[in-house]
Amino acid sequence: MRTYFDCIPCFLRQALDALRRMGGDEAVQEKVLRAVLKAAGEMDLGRSPPAMGQVIHRLIREATGDADPYREAKERLNRLALDLYPGLRRRVVEDSDPLAVALRLAAAGNVIDLGVKSGIAEAEIAGAIGDSLSAPLDGGAVERFRRAADLAENILYIGDNAGEIVLDRLLVEQLGAGKVTFAVRGAPVINDVTVADAEASGMAEMVEVIDSGSDAPGTILEDCSDAFRERFAGAALVLAKGQGNYETLSDADKPVFFLLKAKCPVIARDIGCPVGSLVLQGGSEE
Amino acid sequence: MRTYFDCIPCFLRQALDALRRMGGDEAVQEKVLRAVLKAAGEMDLGRSPPAMGQVIHRLIREATGDADPYREAKERLNRLALDLYPGLRRRVVEDSDPLAVALRLAAAGNVIDLGVKSGIAEAEIAGAIGDSLSAPLDGGAVERFRRAADLAENILYIGDNAGEIVLDRLLVEQLGAGKVTFAVRGAPVINDVTVADAEASGMAEMVEVIDSGSDAPGTILEDCSDAFRERFAGAALVLAKGQGNYETLSDADKPVFFLLKAKCPVIARDIGCPVGSLVLQGGSEE
Repeated sequence: MRTYFDCIPCFLRQALDALRRMGGDEAVQEKVLRAVLKAAGEMDLGRSPPAMGQVIHRLIREATGDADPYREAKERLNRLALDLYPGLRRRVVEDSDPLAVALRLAAAGNVIDLGVKSGIAEAEIAGAIGDSLSAPLDGGAVERFRRAADLAENILYIGDNAGEIVLDRLLVEQLGAGKVTFAVRGAPVINDVTVADAEASGMAEMVEVIDSGSDAPGTILEDCSDAFRERFAGAALVLAKGQGNYETLSDADKPVFFLLKAKCPVIARDIGCPVGSLVLQGGSEE
Repeated sequence: MRTYFDCIPCFLRQALDALRRMGGDEAVQEKVLRAVLKAAGEMDLGRSPPAMGQVIHRLIREATGDADPYREAKERLNRLALDLYPGLRRRVVEDSDPLAVALRLAAAGNVIDLGVKSGIAEAEIAGAIGDSLSAPLDGGAVERFRRAADLAENILYIGDNAGEIVLDRLLVEQLGAGKVTFAVRGAPVINDVTVADAEASGMAEMVEVIDSGSDAPGTILEDCSDAFRERFAGAALVLAKGQGNYETLSDADKPVFFLLKAKCPVIARDIGCPVGSLVLQGGSEE
């Protein structure tokens, strides 16, 4: 997906959020904001929004010397989701269609995205989970995904955010942990999942975890490691979670299933759904 | 008032709104957005937000060749407010405290600000008017204003927006049209009042109308004409409407009364009130 004009005010807001989260010197904040404005003024709008996100968060980390400003937030979000996990797992396994419920809950978990919103409250996560169980979800896409997942011998599951990764476990269990590889970002960026989150969430005990080799808040293939690109190319099925992965892989050569909550108007328009929708997209609609 | 970091994403949103309002070529829009990003990256944050607004809207007018992109919107807003005027005037004159009601309605009219929001619906204006009659308004400030207005032999009333100017007539009537001079912007910018709006609203038939000599969406004194600055210096009482005038005159050497609806979080924080408040500020609180 290209970068739309509406992404530009949002880049600035996102940079401000990150700078405030780190507190500190107003002069440093001003310096970073000016650098972000300059970079945005010169950016290639043909590239995806996470390409700019990568630039912004590098500028912030360099200027502030903090390699992971969202570390505490990520730890809190993982703990919060782990508290919800046992109850949610019961809902999945007791349902007549556990895969469909796991898809809904994993999509609901995508509400935990600090790139879109500055903060997220426990009640908002609980609300998104409750809503997801009855929200519209493309039944055709669920069936296409079910068939593709049954047939696939190896599945690459590209994660998105801390906290959300705990809910991804519900879906990984339904897919069969033995055939899933879970991909995280190569370095901290916003509250995106890293190896540390795969460990804190329990995901690392279930499946093989690989990292993208990139610090972009998405999957910019040309910026990923050779090792990651090989795994991506070799996967029988790729499931990519969240907005950043959609933005960076929606034009990929390989068919990808996307599972996300459409939280911003730009993404919703690109997908063609109302803001707030649960989205499962992928597979050919013959 | 200085420019806060939070104003920066808002500048970009405002530029996008104006560009979209004019429709037209995406390449021109992109060119202007890049120029706005560059200007914002180099701006002096010690200056007020309307100083940047002035730069942005000049860039837009130059790139698009449209000297007044908001002309139709302003005409519509004036007509809409003129339809409401007779009923509102009755409310004022039938009240036991007509000045207080006129202050409330003139402040409610300040909701008609296309710098803060891209569009405004008739229902929103009616809602703001309805709410204003019972909303909290600083009673001490009303009494200070009443005394100052009674004593003043000449009053400079600095207008803000088209549409809103019709509701300003209610307050001008209470102040005594004979001693009021009404100031408009020197050239079109957003939906700010110009001489054309003073004529369309009926204000020009009631009082002397002068213009600031500046195309800033506020009153940047050093950018105003000598004639305007003389009138400003010579006024026994200055009443400035709206956010743009507050932002540019809140640090002026001369005491000014401000009347506005605090529509954005930055202004609300600067004033120290909740977003959405009716604000009358000025006069010394002995």
